[in-house]
Amino acid sequence: MKALILQAPKEAISCQETPQPIPTQGQVLVKIKAAAINHRDVYITQGLYPGVVTPIILGSDGTGEIVGLGEGVDSSWLKESVVLNPSIGWETATNVQPKTYEILGMPKNGCFAEYIAVDLKQVHKTPKHLSSEQAAALPLAGLTAYRALFSRAQLQKNERVLISGVGGGVALLACQLAIAAGADVYVTSGSEEKINQAIALGAKGGVNYKEENWHKALLKKANGGFDVIVDSAGGDGFKYFLDLANMGGRIVFYGGTRGSFKVNPQKVFWKQLSLLGSTMGNTKEFGQMLDFVDETQLIPVVDSTWTLEEGAAAFDHMDQGKQFGKIVFKIN
Amino acid sequence: MKALILQAPKEAISCQETPQPIPTQGQVLVKIKAAAINHRDVYITQGLYPGVVTPIILGSDGTGEIVGLGEGVDSSWLKESVVLNPSIGWETATNVQPKTYEILGMPKNGCFAEYIAVDLKQVHKTPKHLSSEQAAALPLAGLTAYRALFSRAQLQKNERVLISGVGGGVALLACQLAIAAGADVYVTSGSEEKINQAIALGAKGGVNYKEENWHKALLKKANGGFDVIVDSAGGDGFKYFLDLANMGGRIVFYGGTRGSFKVNPQKVFWKQLSLLGSTMGNTKEFGQMLDFVDETQLIPVVDSTWTLEEGAAAFDHMDQGKQFGKIVFKIN
Repeated sequence: MKALILQAPKEAISCQETPQPIPTQGQVLVKIKAAAINHRDVYITQGLYPGVVTPIILGSDGTGEIVGLGEGVDSSWLKESVVLNPSIGWETATNVQPKTYEILGMPKNGCFAEYIAVDLKQVHKTPKHLSSEQAAALPLAGLTAYRALFSRAQLQKNERVLISGVGGGVALLACQLAIAAGADVYVTSGSEEKINQAIALGAKGGVNYKEENWHKALLKKANGGFDVIVDSAGGDGFKYFLDLANMGGRIVFYGGTRGSFKVNPQKVFWKQLSLLGSTMGNTKEFGQMLDFVDETQLIPVVDSTWTLEEGAAAFDHMDQGKQFGKIVFKIN
Repeated sequence: MKALILQAPKEAISCQETPQPIPTQGQVLVKIKAAAINHRDVYITQGLYPGVVTPIILGSDGTGEIVGLGEGVDSSWLKESVVLNPSIGWETATNVQPKTYEILGMPKNGCFAEYIAVDLKQVHKTPKHLSSEQAAALPLAGLTAYRALFSRAQLQKNERVLISGVGGGVALLACQLAIAAGADVYVTSGSEEKINQAIALGAKGGVNYKEENWHKALLKKANGGFDVIVDSAGGDGFKYFLDLANMGGRIVFYGGTRGSFKVNPQKVFWKQLSLLGSTMGNTKEFGQMLDFVDETQLIPVVDSTWTLEEGAAAFDHMDQGKQFGKIVFKIN
């Protein structure tokens, strides 16, 4: 089969022939129809991840059809359209991941291939209203955004939400999930175009964080502060979130690309703020996310589709950061 | 009646004669038996609080006997032993204080007096196992500690708790409440003597934060990290809490005497940490705290007792920070 393979960190990935996997006991063989890139994949190729195992087929997000069954798997699963849960080993609904927790696509082979063999517990039925490309856009970003908004920040209907850097994969899905949940959503971005695209999806407004005093402009534009703020940057700009947060506000973050941030404790305790770290989620949260997408008929945004042969170019497109929505490989 | 009165910020308080208050509709007249000092009182005299109204009778913590009733108050309250809830105007069990929220003892006259007239809704029956001095040690610190541990950090039985600066009034009550809740409690202090006093109360151990690498010594001594950390200092030392926290840990703070602190977001999100600001609590939490003290027969620590005439000296004793437990005026 064809697969995008990373031979060693800091090398470019390339589309190569590799043996098709064979499902073992309790596994299913999925013929991948579409798979999406995450920053994680790019960081791994750039050698920014510790403990990278190579050669490896990358890819945490995939969807496809079950075409083969390992021993012990009920035959009713054959031909089922499924989306893969990229969280491996966090099956019980605990609030923290176990030590054995892994993410699909390193160290285990991932979805940038024509086939993948995975444990049955990793597959969930694909929401019927989604194309393969749309479904592939969902898993990692949707799970991370769902846990941040609902499990961690306990978002309530009609609350006011701020999503920073809405061009990011998780940020955009957080924006869509929060809108679908009935929240009033505002965004920041370094690109006016992305702000307008978020508004077209239902956001109430946004500001460009490259502008001086963006936080003041936002407070004015939004006519008040925010109950939930979702961030993955940290850094110097984080301090403004303490001012932008309403009393009882929850600031949740699943990344920190701009590094450490400073906190004035007086601003936090008097306002009863909560600063909440979050990651991808457990199996229960993955199912809840899919159910929510199904109920609200949410459609994740696909930026562009590529073939596996265009792998290196697709990774470059991701690295340039001009996309709005997920970059998806159309495979079978 | 006699009362400790602050004539203007940055002046010393002094014991003076002042008219006895008269309870208005819905109020009760309490003959104060004992009242405790909080850092808040000292900060107000030092001009460190914004918007101080003078002349003022300070004092947020008081207990006594109801000796007079305003119109509309049921006569069964007469002669009742009561403890005063220092939170004014936060009667509904919301997660944030309303804008009209006040603390007893400024701008409204407080407890360092022979009598006080307060709304009936501010008084709760005194736990029967406590002396007046012990009951006076409870309100502000007990309420703050209770909300931090239980409402905000959601402390569970058998969890591991770290209380920083256990010599503080709230910190010591947090230590006692957590021990009473069945937690394994460790403490820090700048004083070996206070660490030993906390151990005598049931803490498992502690370290002196003035020692270099105290956080490493603590991890070793405690044989692992902590699920809940309670702090009111912030500052440079806060960063160690991110290392000391267990997966899913909650770091709750109700003050920041050492100023801003820096947060490495990677340490927070991967460990699913929560950094939670907290203050005093609402009326429901005050009642829950008293019930908890009653059920567990907890006895707050009284450092020393003073007369109202010794007011300025008692304030100095507080400011020197050598006390362990509350500094209490014995009044009637």
